[in-house]
Amino acid sequence: MPAPIDFYFDFLSPYGYFASTRIDTLAAQYGRSVCWRVFYMRGIMQDRLGQTRPFLDVPIKGDYYKHDVPRMARWFGVPLNSGGLSNFVSANACRAFWLLDDLDPHLAKRFAREIFEWHHVRATPPNTPEQVAQAAANVGLDTEQLDLATAVQLPEAKERLRRETDAAAAAGVWGMPTFAVDGELFWGADRLYLVEDWLRRGGW
Amino acid sequence: MPAPIDFYFDFLSPYGYFASTRIDTLAAQYGRSVCWRVFYMRGIMQDRLGQTRPFLDVPIKGDYYKHDVPRMARWFGVPLNSGGLSNFVSANACRAFWLLDDLDPHLAKRFAREIFEWHHVRATPPNTPEQVAQAAANVGLDTEQLDLATAVQLPEAKERLRRETDAAAAAGVWGMPTFAVDGELFWGADRLYLVEDWLRRGGW
Repeated sequence: MPAPIDFYFDFLSPYGYFASTRIDTLAAQYGRSVCWRVFYMRGIMQDRLGQTRPFLDVPIKGDYYKHDVPRMARWFGVPLNSGGLSNFVSANACRAFWLLDDLDPHLAKRFAREIFEWHHVRATPPNTPEQVAQAAANVGLDTEQLDLATAVQLPEAKERLRRETDAAAAAGVWGMPTFAVDGELFWGADRLYLVEDWLRRGGW
Repeated sequence: MPAPIDFYFDFLSPYGYFASTRIDTLAAQYGRSVCWRVFYMRGIMQDRLGQTRPFLDVPIKGDYYKHDVPRMARWFGVPLNSGGLSNFVSANACRAFWLLDDLDPHLAKRFAREIFEWHHVRATPPNTPEQVAQAAANVGLDTEQLDLATAVQLPEAKERLRRETDAAAAAGVWGMPTFAVDGELFWGADRLYLVEDWLRRGGW
C-alpha cells in the first residue's frame, strides 16, 4: 500500500475548503488515502514566520485575494458565502478535530466538512465550543460518549493542537492548505494539478 | 483584436523566467499578444507591502521555495543553474528593459530572455551597467544608437522604472510574475493553467 497523502489545513482558509472537496477523490484515483491534519495557522504565522499582519490586510495583496477567493470558488464549482476570514476564530474547531480524530478519523473528516460548510457556505462561523459540539453532533458524534463543548476547553485539547501545529511546521508546512505526497510538499489549492501530476508520474 | 495580455515580472524571480518560456505561445493560441512589463519587486515589497525580509529568509517558507524552484524548473522542462536570488541586483536590467522597449518591444523581449538566461541558466547575474549593455548587444542592440551602460544610470532611467513599478502596483500587481487578462490578475507561474482557462472560456 502506498503511503497516505497528508492534507494540512486550517478551517480559516477558503482554499482549504476548496481543496477539501477534491483531495480524497483525486488521491483515490491513484490508490491513495488521505490523512487530514488540521493545524493552527495563526500559530505558524506569528511564532514561526514572524508575520503578525493578516495577509488580507496587506495592501494590494489583500485586494487580490478578496477577488480571487470567489473566483476560485466558481472555478472549483463550490458554493461560497463566507465573506471573509475576519469573523472566524478557528481554535475550538481545530482542537475538536483532533479529539474526534482519536475516536474515528472518518467522523473527524465529516466534522471538518461540516465546519467548512458552516463557515464558508452558511456564513455561520462556528466559533464557540457549543457550536463546534453541535457541528459534531450533526455528523454523528455520540454526545453521550464525548462532551465536546467541555473537552475542547481542556488544557490537553489545547496542547494537542499545539503539538499537531508543531508537527506540521516540522514537516515543512507554512501555509494552508499544504499537501504532502511521500514527503514532497505542495502549497495551495491551485496546485492540486501538480499533486496529481506527481502521483501520476511518481515524481519528476 | 482582443487586448494584449500583460506579463508583469522582475528578472529576479525564477518563476518569471519559467513563465517567460511559455506565455507568448500560450497567448498566441487564443489570438493574443503579450506585453512584457518589468517592474522592480524590491520597490513593491518594501514600499507597498511593508515586507522588508526577503521571503527566502523566512523560516520554513524559504526552505519550501528553495526546494520548489528546481522542482518547477524540471516541471517546465527548462534549464536552471541560478542557485538563488541573493547575488542578483536587477535594477540595471529592469531600467534597461524600458529603454529598449522604447526603441523596439521585440528587442526588449529578446533582451529579457537574454537576462533570464544569464541569471537563471548561466549563473552570471548581469548586475552592472556594462553587463546589461553586453546582454543587449548580444540580442541585436545597435550600440551606436544607444549607449545603454551610460543610459541606465541616468535619472530618467531610474524615474522610468519607478513609474512603471507604480503603474504595476496601481494595476494590482504585488508579486512576480503576474498576468493580467482583460483586467483579471493571476499571480504565479503555477497559475498559467488558470490564465489559459480564462482565455479559453472567456472568464468564469
